[in-house]
Amino acid sequence: MTWTSTQVQLARRPEGVPSDDVWDITSTEVAEPADGEVVVQVRYLSLDPAMRGWLNDVRSYIPPVQIGEVMRAGGTGTVVASAHPDHAVGDVVTGTVGAREYATLPGEELTTLDLDLADEPTWLGALGMPGMTAYFGLTEVGALQDGETVLVSAAAGAVGSVVAQIAKARGCRVIGVAGGPDKVAWLRELGCDEAIDYREGDLTRQVRKAAPDGVDIYFDNVGGPLLDAALANLRRGARVVLCGAISGYNAQSLPDGPKRYMSLLVFRARMEGFVVFDYEDRYPEAIAAIGSMIRDGSLVARETVLDGGVRAFPEALRGLFDGVNTGKLVLAL
Amino acid sequence: MTWTSTQVQLARRPEGVPSDDVWDITSTEVAEPADGEVVVQVRYLSLDPAMRGWLNDVRSYIPPVQIGEVMRAGGTGTVVASAHPDHAVGDVVTGTVGAREYATLPGEELTTLDLDLADEPTWLGALGMPGMTAYFGLTEVGALQDGETVLVSAAAGAVGSVVAQIAKARGCRVIGVAGGPDKVAWLRELGCDEAIDYREGDLTRQVRKAAPDGVDIYFDNVGGPLLDAALANLRRGARVVLCGAISGYNAQSLPDGPKRYMSLLVFRARMEGFVVFDYEDRYPEAIAAIGSMIRDGSLVARETVLDGGVRAFPEALRGLFDGVNTGKLVLAL
Repeated sequence: MTWTSTQVQLARRPEGVPSDDVWDITSTEVAEPADGEVVVQVRYLSLDPAMRGWLNDVRSYIPPVQIGEVMRAGGTGTVVASAHPDHAVGDVVTGTVGAREYATLPGEELTTLDLDLADEPTWLGALGMPGMTAYFGLTEVGALQDGETVLVSAAAGAVGSVVAQIAKARGCRVIGVAGGPDKVAWLRELGCDEAIDYREGDLTRQVRKAAPDGVDIYFDNVGGPLLDAALANLRRGARVVLCGAISGYNAQSLPDGPKRYMSLLVFRARMEGFVVFDYEDRYPEAIAAIGSMIRDGSLVARETVLDGGVRAFPEALRGLFDGVNTGKLVLAL
Repeated sequence: MTWTSTQVQLARRPEGVPSDDVWDITSTEVAEPADGEVVVQVRYLSLDPAMRGWLNDVRSYIPPVQIGEVMRAGGTGTVVASAHPDHAVGDVVTGTVGAREYATLPGEELTTLDLDLADEPTWLGALGMPGMTAYFGLTEVGALQDGETVLVSAAAGAVGSVVAQIAKARGCRVIGVAGGPDKVAWLRELGCDEAIDYREGDLTRQVRKAAPDGVDIYFDNVGGPLLDAALANLRRGARVVLCGAISGYNAQSLPDGPKRYMSLLVFRARMEGFVVFDYEDRYPEAIAAIGSMIRDGSLVARETVLDGGVRAFPEALRGLFDGVNTGKLVLAL
């Protein structure tokens, strides 16, 4: 048996926001899996800010997507054919499936999901890469201590919303930053002590007002002016966790750096980057911790699910940079 | 008895490079010391890049010098009168004496110098604050490991030259950066494996050529384009030690930040600031380590000594930013 799969390939490298003509949408026939392989019918695709970086032809923590390749994307789906002993037809799995309807992958690159714990979209969000990123970024890189003051940007997003809730569960004072009144209202629902709308401007003043004694941890998903505002409002010994810089991902030249970086000296503080893949061996620990919080209700996992199938991928990706999502953004196929 | 002391007071806050009219040079009578105090005839004044920061009316790691105050400065000198049991007339001491000929200070703020180990100017350089800064910045903040690749800027300066030599003694590959052929030649004499003249431009390429596998530690005294060049050439797990940013100290607005700061993410690296005063309890450890290197010849302590007395202080300070010094810059009174 074969399956006809619509797929999204990179046609050319984008400048700025990836327009439709960056992509070729094609169909291909997917054959029965070879030995050790599995064919997955993809049901949900993950949309991640990091995807924008993967489109640039530069040395980074992961090779760029090449012209002509199917776009790299995490996802979940159902096994429709298996030549791997660990996977049976009907199993629901997750992995880097790519932006396509059917994916043939080595069985060992797929993980079977526990749908009793959470639905598929949550396995791409709080229990997926964003959740892992939040957990290890905050606890390992940020060296979170109970009761500290934590500032988190893109706090209504997939990573930020988990950061905020883990910090709250650790007795921290949490200040979330997001764009627009709806997201700010949601941050308060999540338990943030303060919620800042970055669209209201004067970020240095807003952060100072929310954290008059300064912040111990700034978990940065956005870069730009908010990073400078955070640097101006650190406490002694603060940690700035560099997780992302979405405000600059579509810039056509390298955006300005943080002018206030010498605050790191004044406050004896550090700024440190990380890549979640380095913690792969410890994902079970994070899944257990976040899963337990989901079960006891101390963590709300939220996703924004877009419809439209794989052909809607280009538009969905742009939506991420427009902030259409609250929580994790996924595309249903 | 009294002493007539010429002193340099801050008259107004500078914009840019501190011109002569930033200072008032006045004379005052110094009386016999009160109980617990000591009168020191200042012999050498330390000139430090950090002084420029002390002139700005901003919150920092130390209060700014106030208008009308004698300029803060480290120095050495001879006790000419003492009402403190630990200090006798004729002792040679060091402390924050200020830019003046005679200083009255509490005895406990002065340290008696061991002139058998080194001369007074060296006690302001390799055995003074710059040496302490090099030692703790490199070993504690930089977490130096034997055999690593270390890049250091202002490597012909007071701090950088000690950083380079400690790193060499630890079996590191050391790349020093300085301005002009004389300083570069001196860096090679000191044992630097590579010496870069920043005036030759294209710093990213120069650093890449000197450290094709990247650097483990960048000890930053300068900021500016060299910081970006270093960030572009890190190794995984690298540490950027923020010690200073002399390239921007005279700027009239906040200089640009490091555009390449997201390299910290790609390389899982950290950038961390520190203030040497935090290590005050451990100065004896650093003095012992550096003193031992001076004795066995593995560390060359060099100073550039300017003449001209306290009235030459304003010009001497500007000289620091013009790079007139090799090694520590001191002014003889």
